[in-house]
Amino acid sequence: MAKTVSSPPKPAERITIREVAQDAGVSVAAVSKVLRDAYGVSDALRAKVRASMDKLNYRPRASARGMRGKTYTLGLIFPDLRNPFFADVYAGVNSALERTQYQAMQGFSTTPAALIEAMIDRQMDGLILIGPNESAASLAATGARLPLVTIGQHDKSGDGYDTVNNDDQLGARLVVRHLVGNGFRNIAMLSLMQPASTVIEQRELGYRLEMMEQKCGGTINIVRAPQVVRDVQVAVRRLLESKERPDAIFCWTDLMAFEAISVAVDLGLSVPDDIAIVGYDNTMFCDFAQNSLTSVDQSGELLGLQAARLVVERIDGRSAADHFTVPPRIVARNSSRPRKPI
Amino acid sequence: MAKTVSSPPKPAERITIREVAQDAGVSVAAVSKVLRDAYGVSDALRAKVRASMDKLNYRPRASARGMRGKTYTLGLIFPDLRNPFFADVYAGVNSALERTQYQAMQGFSTTPAALIEAMIDRQMDGLILIGPNESAASLAATGARLPLVTIGQHDKSGDGYDTVNNDDQLGARLVVRHLVGNGFRNIAMLSLMQPASTVIEQRELGYRLEMMEQKCGGTINIVRAPQVVRDVQVAVRRLLESKERPDAIFCWTDLMAFEAISVAVDLGLSVPDDIAIVGYDNTMFCDFAQNSLTSVDQSGELLGLQAARLVVERIDGRSAADHFTVPPRIVARNSSRPRKPI
Repeated sequence: MAKTVSSPPKPAERITIREVAQDAGVSVAAVSKVLRDAYGVSDALRAKVRASMDKLNYRPRASARGMRGKTYTLGLIFPDLRNPFFADVYAGVNSALERTQYQAMQGFSTTPAALIEAMIDRQMDGLILIGPNESAASLAATGARLPLVTIGQHDKSGDGYDTVNNDDQLGARLVVRHLVGNGFRNIAMLSLMQPASTVIEQRELGYRLEMMEQKCGGTINIVRAPQVVRDVQVAVRRLLESKERPDAIFCWTDLMAFEAISVAVDLGLSVPDDIAIVGYDNTMFCDFAQNSLTSVDQSGELLGLQAARLVVERIDGRSAADHFTVPPRIVARNSSRPRKPI
Repeated sequence: MAKTVSSPPKPAERITIREVAQDAGVSVAAVSKVLRDAYGVSDALRAKVRASMDKLNYRPRASARGMRGKTYTLGLIFPDLRNPFFADVYAGVNSALERTQYQAMQGFSTTPAALIEAMIDRQMDGLILIGPNESAASLAATGARLPLVTIGQHDKSGDGYDTVNNDDQLGARLVVRHLVGNGFRNIAMLSLMQPASTVIEQRELGYRLEMMEQKCGGTINIVRAPQVVRDVQVAVRRLLESKERPDAIFCWTDLMAFEAISVAVDLGLSVPDDIAIVGYDNTMFCDFAQNSLTSVDQSGELLGLQAARLVVERIDGRSAADHFTVPPRIVARNSSRPRKPI
């Protein structure tokens, strides 16, 4: 039974920033800069200070920092814990914070208003909201109270908060282009019914515009279902059993696409020979052979990384808004390969 | 573009517990009891106080509570965000806390020592650790500093902390019994290489003991792989391509089982006719037809619910340890159905 024994630190012997500075032979201000991961810190200085911190087992005291108005804690609010895409975003946030003294605390809610209050109450230095459905006005009001960055939210409102996105309209266009290129014509879109979001709007818009531009003769058909297993199943089943069965279904998220594959398999249909299926997010489950799901990669890790950087910049005093957009790309797999000629 | 407009609360007009009591026509102590969801609070009293809180838009002030030594914040530490099982545990914690003033803040780490310190620093009232690999001594040391409950950890240490588990040894036994009952003999186990955990130990032990008791002539064969996609693939491929290919693989977690299905599909093998596969956790992806994975349900939601209750009890003063175990059950699906007679 090999176990890691980690002896708890002794709070009575806490090392101060002064002792770290003394040990490293630098100023207290220099140590402080390293702690904040401030710009202009040389690698040599960082290495020296970090070595002293490690040697002395230095750990900043959050409660003391809280009294000075800073807790070095960021709040992250995700809509849910089931979508594997959020694990990518989280990994990005984490790697951005690794070299800083900031610690992220996560919460989950589809209606985050109460959770936002709870995080402000708990003196978070800044917030990152993933896929929030709040209005721009409500987000600006939150942004006026503490540094705020949204991921997966396209409304902008003055300098109130920063936004980080992939280009969802382009992502949807890429899906239609890819499917048409592989010989599919009647491409339906399976979208989200509730709650409305700017991400959904952009993906639906991209789908509509590209279907029109491609002039492939396919019908524009958007079916909306709530993100609830049973409802998605009913919607997909209706689509697959309809007289005018589509050639392909573009699902607004991988999670819905996996459910669509499940319904197709249940009905004895072959993917993609009877029905092609494409998702969005390129989550780890796409790669499994039983899914082999074509998907749009929106670089979740990069989105998380960038959001963490931006919120720390705001904490450090930036007040003008920054809006970051990453280009999406198609990752093609079996679920949308060209059909075998009959 | 239908949006929810939530106006931010005005911090200057904060309602106090005294005003709630006055409005409800009850004592301040009674309101306090409702806030703590204490035992002995009648439904009528709760309804009356809640109605006044809603009417007055009462919200307890976490920072003020912090100064009094209580923040009504619980820390939850999960090993990772990718395993869908943790969403079930989280749902249980959340539903237990719904009627209380407690708020859960989540963190993710496979080596939680630093995160535990960060949570203590941030004045969490109590901690729930999910699948921690800390030694019993280390957990007891943490339990001496704040109320602590572990989920998925079988070591006990005096009264230092509470444990919540399913019976992992029994769960593994049920898998072997189920497979033997369906005609499978050579049952291999795909287990976790690093880090060692009491959950793994119990599942391996249950597998071994039941294989011996069943006297089915099958070889006991435990293959261990790290929880990394590539390593799991290599381990499964080696097992499936070996001269003595097993009839069935019992995977210690669903996530590994989905990868095992993927490798089998890639090799052109049929599940279960060439190889039966069983997982553990009964996560939502088991139900998808492309997986149709037999799994052990360990009632993740109930584990979360119970852990939240126990940690709140400890915060309220209980000092004797409580150890809760839930019985696991097999949920049979296609991945282990009896083979067609040749």
